[in-house]
Amino acid sequence: MEPLRLALIGFGNVGQGFMRVLSKTQVRCVVAAIATKRNGCRLFRDHQPPSQLADWLQEPHETLTLEELVAHPHIDVVIETLPTDLDNPSNVMDIQTAALRAGKHVITANKGPAAHSYLALAELARENHVIYGVEATVMSGTPAIQLIHALQGAQIKRLQGIFNGTSNFILSQMEGGSQYADALTEATRLGYAEPDPSADVDGLDIRAKLMILAQVAFGVSHTTQDIQIAGIRDLDQRLVAETVAAGKRLKLVGLLDPKSASVRLMSLPETDPLARISGATNGIAVTTELLGTVSLIGPGAGAEETGTALLVDLNRVLEVNHG
Amino acid sequence: MEPLRLALIGFGNVGQGFMRVLSKTQVRCVVAAIATKRNGCRLFRDHQPPSQLADWLQEPHETLTLEELVAHPHIDVVIETLPTDLDNPSNVMDIQTAALRAGKHVITANKGPAAHSYLALAELARENHVIYGVEATVMSGTPAIQLIHALQGAQIKRLQGIFNGTSNFILSQMEGGSQYADALTEATRLGYAEPDPSADVDGLDIRAKLMILAQVAFGVSHTTQDIQIAGIRDLDQRLVAETVAAGKRLKLVGLLDPKSASVRLMSLPETDPLARISGATNGIAVTTELLGTVSLIGPGAGAEETGTALLVDLNRVLEVNHG
Repeated sequence: MEPLRLALIGFGNVGQGFMRVLSKTQVRCVVAAIATKRNGCRLFRDHQPPSQLADWLQEPHETLTLEELVAHPHIDVVIETLPTDLDNPSNVMDIQTAALRAGKHVITANKGPAAHSYLALAELARENHVIYGVEATVMSGTPAIQLIHALQGAQIKRLQGIFNGTSNFILSQMEGGSQYADALTEATRLGYAEPDPSADVDGLDIRAKLMILAQVAFGVSHTTQDIQIAGIRDLDQRLVAETVAAGKRLKLVGLLDPKSASVRLMSLPETDPLARISGATNGIAVTTELLGTVSLIGPGAGAEETGTALLVDLNRVLEVNHG
Repeated sequence: MEPLRLALIGFGNVGQGFMRVLSKTQVRCVVAAIATKRNGCRLFRDHQPPSQLADWLQEPHETLTLEELVAHPHIDVVIETLPTDLDNPSNVMDIQTAALRAGKHVITANKGPAAHSYLALAELARENHVIYGVEATVMSGTPAIQLIHALQGAQIKRLQGIFNGTSNFILSQMEGGSQYADALTEATRLGYAEPDPSADVDGLDIRAKLMILAQVAFGVSHTTQDIQIAGIRDLDQRLVAETVAAGKRLKLVGLLDPKSASVRLMSLPETDPLARISGATNGIAVTTELLGTVSLIGPGAGAEETGTALLVDLNRVLEVNHG
């Protein structure tokens, strides 16, 4: 069988993390194209194993527009890892739409298009007999999306989770006695927090993930206005200390049921499966009619971690394509 | 597209649980045959929706041998839920082999054939471009097998888990002060323990699951002799009490790495993801090179719970068959 031909759209931390993960596997695929801001769109006529990719970026190659590249007959799968822009997802959505319309599988780490239009994009994928994979948009390589798909038959009633590692890390530092500002500085030093930490500490990142999960789990779309959010910005250390003293844990939790979604700062008892998730770790607890609650706990961010999630979706493509 | 035609081999608790789960979903399939000890093999020429199954069992139908039935051209998928016999798996293995050779997908809840020959049966499935699904053999509807597949790209180093709900329930009762005999009686009363509890309390059930997991996770086969086991039969309540007093939990744990497998009675610190798993719940912690540890916690037994696991594999078949 012919190997799958991948187009990598975006080649930053996550794209390069994906390549490192891919180079360690036996997955039957080749990188046939790369598009980066600096190098433009490049389509490789002679497919090479991923390990020689660094050399390729030095050589001149045919240049196409992004829409032409993702729809090109030499491409089977589009791996899209452009930076998430929650306010302006339409550019990336156009690229994903062009690829799906051309019958290419699309695997993305980008929360923007999935948050706003997962249902429409997944339907477009179905119509074109390809996969729209969003495993990498939530909890990185911890396969939360796959878990939700697996539990559909058990009838999902609600889910809740710790979906942002940065804010959870800050809360854990504050449980250890740190003030908010010091905990944020530490999170930035370790690379968990961006220079502008709003998305992480104000609940915006969790809201985007809930918008994705609502569509995947319940087939329901929420606008950003539908979802009440809370954050941890400038949280008083005494509130954290008092919660711990009462034998509980203060957590920034995303909650979802078929009718509503919200981000809340909650005081969880120690018996809650999410209470003991510390540091940058994420977790999801899915409550079903037939199975009760199933919980999945693991890392929620990182280049190779997110690369692993992209690989999970790529393996689905391989299973569908090659039986 | 034509609906998938299922043959149900075995129609006891798990088979009936599967039917109840299936009847609540929109899965495009029909029950085209049922084989039970009492009614023999029945192939239904006029496919009916699953809800009318009870009537079908009353009517006379064409009778075939099991091997003829699973290889019949009117069948696409074999759902095998015969009782597990770890000592004599060969009868069921013959049925699974006949089905796979005839190009039928095989989805099983039976630990016997999978423990002894998962690798060979999965290879036979690959050769015939069908799926050999064993999700229901470990942790019921909590999708541990799917998790391991998803984490392959992250390079699994080892895994450990609480894979037997009955023994974990007994240990939880003993933590609450019960003597072993009383806890076992309670487990039997609730339907967790069989009249002969050996498989659950002597570690034999966990050993079979480790044999399956070793093949799925590492491609390695162990014989029963390779795996050192421990159990909880007649465990002294004072040992449980002392462990709790020391701030730890006594757990019957299955451990697996690429070279070895064992079942051990372990004293786990509260920080261990498996320590707080109480009652009949199961859990698995998979440690990987790229993601660290990912944990999955949920129910480990039950008719509808195991039926949900069979449905997880059936959905994989649908994804492969219908894009």
